[in-house]
Amino acid sequence: MLKFGLIGCGRIGTMHANILHQEDDVILESVFDINKNFAKVVSNKTGAKVCNQDSELFKNKDIDAILIASVTSTHADYIEKALTNHKPVFCEKPIDLSLNRIRQCYNRIKKNDLPIQIGFNRRFDPSHAKIKNLLKENKIGQLNQVIITSRDPEMPSEEYYKSAGGLFRDMTIHDFDLARFYLDEDPIEIFASAQKLIDPNMMNKISDHDTAMFILTCKDGKQCFINNSRTAVYGYDQRVELLGSNGMLQSGNYNLDQTKIYKRESTETSSPYLYFFIERYQEAFSLQLKSFIRSVKQNSSTDVGFEDGYKALVIAEAAYKSLQERKSVSINYDW
Amino acid sequence: MLKFGLIGCGRIGTMHANILHQEDDVILESVFDINKNFAKVVSNKTGAKVCNQDSELFKNKDIDAILIASVTSTHADYIEKALTNHKPVFCEKPIDLSLNRIRQCYNRIKKNDLPIQIGFNRRFDPSHAKIKNLLKENKIGQLNQVIITSRDPEMPSEEYYKSAGGLFRDMTIHDFDLARFYLDEDPIEIFASAQKLIDPNMMNKISDHDTAMFILTCKDGKQCFINNSRTAVYGYDQRVELLGSNGMLQSGNYNLDQTKIYKRESTETSSPYLYFFIERYQEAFSLQLKSFIRSVKQNSSTDVGFEDGYKALVIAEAAYKSLQERKSVSINYDW
Amino acid sequence: MLKFGLIGCGRIGTMHANILHQEDDVILESVFDINKNFAKVVSNKTGAKVCNQDSELFKNKDIDAILIASVTSTHADYIEKALTNHKPVFCEKPIDLSLNRIRQCYNRIKKNDLPIQIGFNRRFDPSHAKIKNLLKENKIGQLNQVIITSRDPEMPSEEYYKSAGGLFRDMTIHDFDLARFYLDEDPIEIFASAQKLIDPNMMNKISDHDTAMFILTCKDGKQCFINNSRTAVYGYDQRVELLGSNGMLQSGNYNLDQTKIYKRESTETSSPYLYFFIERYQEAFSLQLKSFIRSVKQNSSTDVGFEDGYKALVIAEAAYKSLQERKSVSINYDW
Amino acid sequence: MLKFGLIGCGRIGTMHANILHQEDDVILESVFDINKNFAKVVSNKTGAKVCNQDSELFKNKDIDAILIASVTSTHADYIEKALTNHKPVFCEKPIDLSLNRIRQCYNRIKKNDLPIQIGFNRRFDPSHAKIKNLLKENKIGQLNQVIITSRDPEMPSEEYYKSAGGLFRDMTIHDFDLARFYLDEDPIEIFASAQKLIDPNMMNKISDHDTAMFILTCKDGKQCFINNSRTAVYGYDQRVELLGSNGMLQSGNYNLDQTKIYKRESTETSSPYLYFFIERYQEAFSLQLKSFIRSVKQNSSTDVGFEDGYKALVIAEAAYKSLQERKSVSINYDW
Repeated sequence: MLKFGLIGCGRIGTMHANILHQEDDVILESVFDINKNFAKVVSNKTGAKVCNQDSELFKNKDIDAILIASVTSTHADYIEKALTNHKPVFCEKPIDLSLNRIRQCYNRIKKNDLPIQIGFNRRFDPSHAKIKNLLKENKIGQLNQVIITSRDPEMPSEEYYKSAGGLFRDMTIHDFDLARFYLDEDPIEIFASAQKLIDPNMMNKISDHDTAMFILTCKDGKQCFINNSRTAVYGYDQRVELLGSNGMLQSGNYNLDQTKIYKRESTETSSPYLYFFIERYQEAFSLQLKSFIRSVKQNSSTDVGFEDGYKALVIAEAAYKSLQERKSVSINYDW
Repeated sequence: MLKFGLIGCGRIGTMHANILHQEDDVILESVFDINKNFAKVVSNKTGAKVCNQDSELFKNKDIDAILIASVTSTHADYIEKALTNHKPVFCEKPIDLSLNRIRQCYNRIKKNDLPIQIGFNRRFDPSHAKIKNLLKENKIGQLNQVIITSRDPEMPSEEYYKSAGGLFRDMTIHDFDLARFYLDEDPIEIFASAQKLIDPNMMNKISDHDTAMFILTCKDGKQCFINNSRTAVYGYDQRVELLGSNGMLQSGNYNLDQTKIYKRESTETSSPYLYFFIERYQEAFSLQLKSFIRSVKQNSSTDVGFEDGYKALVIAEAAYKSLQERKSVSINYDW
Repeated sequence: MLKFGLIGCGRIGTMHANILHQEDDVILESVFDINKNFAKVVSNKTGAKVCNQDSELFKNKDIDAILIASVTSTHADYIEKALTNHKPVFCEKPIDLSLNRIRQCYNRIKKNDLPIQIGFNRRFDPSHAKIKNLLKENKIGQLNQVIITSRDPEMPSEEYYKSAGGLFRDMTIHDFDLARFYLDEDPIEIFASAQKLIDPNMMNKISDHDTAMFILTCKDGKQCFINNSRTAVYGYDQRVELLGSNGMLQSGNYNLDQTKIYKRESTETSSPYLYFFIERYQEAFSLQLKSFIRSVKQNSSTDVGFEDGYKALVIAEAAYKSLQERKSVSINYDW
Repeated sequence: MLKFGLIGCGRIGTMHANILHQEDDVILESVFDINKNFAKVVSNKTGAKVCNQDSELFKNKDIDAILIASVTSTHADYIEKALTNHKPVFCEKPIDLSLNRIRQCYNRIKKNDLPIQIGFNRRFDPSHAKIKNLLKENKIGQLNQVIITSRDPEMPSEEYYKSAGGLFRDMTIHDFDLARFYLDEDPIEIFASAQKLIDPNMMNKISDHDTAMFILTCKDGKQCFINNSRTAVYGYDQRVELLGSNGMLQSGNYNLDQTKIYKRESTETSSPYLYFFIERYQEAFSLQLKSFIRSVKQNSSTDVGFEDGYKALVIAEAAYKSLQERKSVSINYDW
């Protein structure tokens, strides 16, 4: 029986708690949130103890692994504390909004060989993972192009925006990780184009973007295109297309159900897409933790490591540089 | 250069005239219609001569083949005249509404070996024909079930209804022919259920039905289901499904174009279906005449013979008997 | 907290146990199976007590509701025992293979007003339920035709077959219930056609059928077609189509994931369908028990009552009569 | 009756000849090709006279309009000759591979107000045109992103490549025109990325590319992405996606027929896409000439003018500049 400690009981932390609660050989031992009421709600649902101090979690000998779902600014500290206390750690993305802080963290933990996993859940989505496997099985020959469409159903609040660190670090970072996942190597160059089309007023106010396109290139010429929109009124739009020398693979959207409506004025109308990431990636979130649990049990390397968390942010920073310079820039992954 | 004579310049005759006009090695030589104005319209478009008498067509040595698209009651007579005058003949379905008249006609022409083809156009539809070919190529193993969906976009006029001879002889007869096409043998038993659901008042007035279901059975147990509706507000619905021991084949509907619309309240809405048979079976009508032209040139048997026209009506009559007796009845194809 | 007792820990019982185990306000208190090892497996997973005798379950004052998932021949007895002991009961379909036994059971329990629900899970499937709701909301006007396709992925074992009571009572019974669900009234007439096409040798040996078609008719003329096959190599095929005067609704199949493969020789190939009923109707099974739990808590009538279990079997018996007499027969629902 | 002269009887010229031949109120009067045999083939099929000299066409008073389908290097000359001889002209794309030559041509013809149309056929495709119309009807609100996928089924020959003028001027030029069509304004900036992935050896030899991606930006921030591949083994892939503030529109691919195959190992496999542009854009090519014929008859401006031909090439040249400089470059449309 693996015992978990959870830090952060907001929306995403609660979701992780529920997943852990349903795992057969896992117990959610303790939870902490700076807002104790949030921790209590999770506790009531799962039977976990509520900690008064975050340090209790790290010092508790009974706890085998730590799950970090607190605000971004605390991630790197908590990762360091967890590993210092010899506890494998699962941390939500991003590791930090600052590359320097991530590098500092890396230097502090790199001698460590405990499992550490970053929360890039999309890799675990059954459809996204399936086309990666078909690619590896050589079903479409040599990969030439990756096309990632990633659009949120609706704009987040201004408050959320302010703390998110900008579109590329908050939203596109998932797509940068997916790009690396499919390309199976680190893209060396990126061009970014970003706009304020959906809510120009708010975007101007907070100096952010709501619409963006990116072209990434690998050393061997493989191309990857990413397209982002903070709003898609028809629903959460998450598609991947892989063009190979011998075929094409697509991972598409999930409808709410499998119904179709035929009327005089509309033919074959499908059910809406699953609303947002909690619904769309429900299975991915579960498979992600199963993967981490396996790594903890076997004390083996994880499917999405610290380095993956770092590199996605490196790409985001290069994207901002490209945006500023209006040119394609090299991506430097040096620590 | 093959020279055709056309009898009947209504909607369907005009369509055939246009197809013949576009064939490279065919000339529409002469046309006749009891309404001379109709014939003139076709003549203006195609350059065909307008005959004053139908007999001119049959006696004209220059004419190589006759296409009959006049009213049903004249079909058998014209077939006899064409063959008597040594002209291959293409005749619209049905041969006649009376089995006895068809049998009489058969006895008069059976010594003849000129090509004669009946207008069951659906067999030539690229999608319907494709699944027949895949079936013959053993792609789905042994055929077990045939499911035919056949629904018109809207009710015909009362006038049309009155002369049509009843739902089974007018509309379902196409499906009975398709059933024989896929089953590749003559079904031996039929059960029919027919209702007055769409316009009960008109149906009661003219003693006809607007909605029907049929189950046909072959000697070896293969089953075929047909479903008919005189109205489908979402468009002309023409589907065939073949269930085999080793797979399933479907022939589906044709959308007007390949667009999809995504809105807040409707996802993946497709373009409407092609409106009705003239549009939906446009290519089938053309391939049908190409097939007949080939038979005339080679003086070979046609793809849809007189016997096929007879047997479809035999099934329709058995269906009426089943309806009356509320039981499954044997189908007797004896001449 | 609602406490459940479970009788029968086979495949379907285990599935129900898992669902109950994941419900927040439900405890699976005790389980019984004539094979104690089966009960122990469920106990290990859920923490439920293992009973030595089935009677322990009924006498246990702590148990609020009984779930019956034992062999069919025990259902009626257990229903009677549960209600005699004042416990609401959920019973897997069918209530019994004998209409007389069901009528006897009915007479013994009819004074009772405790919730009793029969396991017709398909009504709770999100897609099947959605089109029922759209129908009720008058989205397609007057319902004219119901088309149900229901094909299993592969043949059950001969052993299963022998105890199943025949195709109509075992497999089609679900479709008969769905027919009633959509028609919203009791069909008054049925015609059945059944064949031995997939495995004629086994079917002859056990006097059963593996392929079937049915036409049901309502008093007002509404039609329902059902088509069954014990094998569909392309996967579990569960579709419903509703044709109305003002549109059409379809409930379709669920793919394993949302991927598509494009190769030189095959275009837009989708992922396989969810394998069988446990996978396909996973959510339906869960929603079904949620519905029952609600009824127990509110002591209200259930969504699928004893009468529904009875009537589906009445239709199955009429279907056998039709098959024998080769005609459409009336369906008599009298107790 | 409008009389046409055709210059160039290769693949595309022959196709245009066939379309004109089938138009009701058009006669293909004369044809010319430097290879007289090519001209004779078209003549045999359509009855057009074969000219010995191209000048005969321009001087023939009976000819109302000229269609230019000869090699690119002759286009500008022929346009000038046609207009000098007071004949409206339809010219295949591109006008020329040199912007300077196009500007020179423009200066020579700009006083002229005869109809001149450039062969950007895709605008006339029913699906592509439909989503443009829906966009204009404000069905998806403000347009934010245009995504164009354009992949050929297989590599052209080395010979073709050499004379084509490079990927951007030969293939992408169609997409640049489509981009302008949907954006409804001239993009002001472009970033291009092009690779040699499919056949690096040939690409190196002829200094060309076989795979490319582009991001275009409008003054108001609207974005357009184009993706090109010289090979797509699954068929000609021609898709457009329009993301608006209030919905999304897609124009998709055309299957050869409407069949689906279901096997144990592959589900819902569709029919291949129409092979290449002649098949896929068959209707577009016909509607394109109908549009030109209308302009000639009404002596009105055409749907795709000389300026459109020029601007698409301007974008292509900017794309080459971007490729060389690895940055986003401004597009200057000045004459």
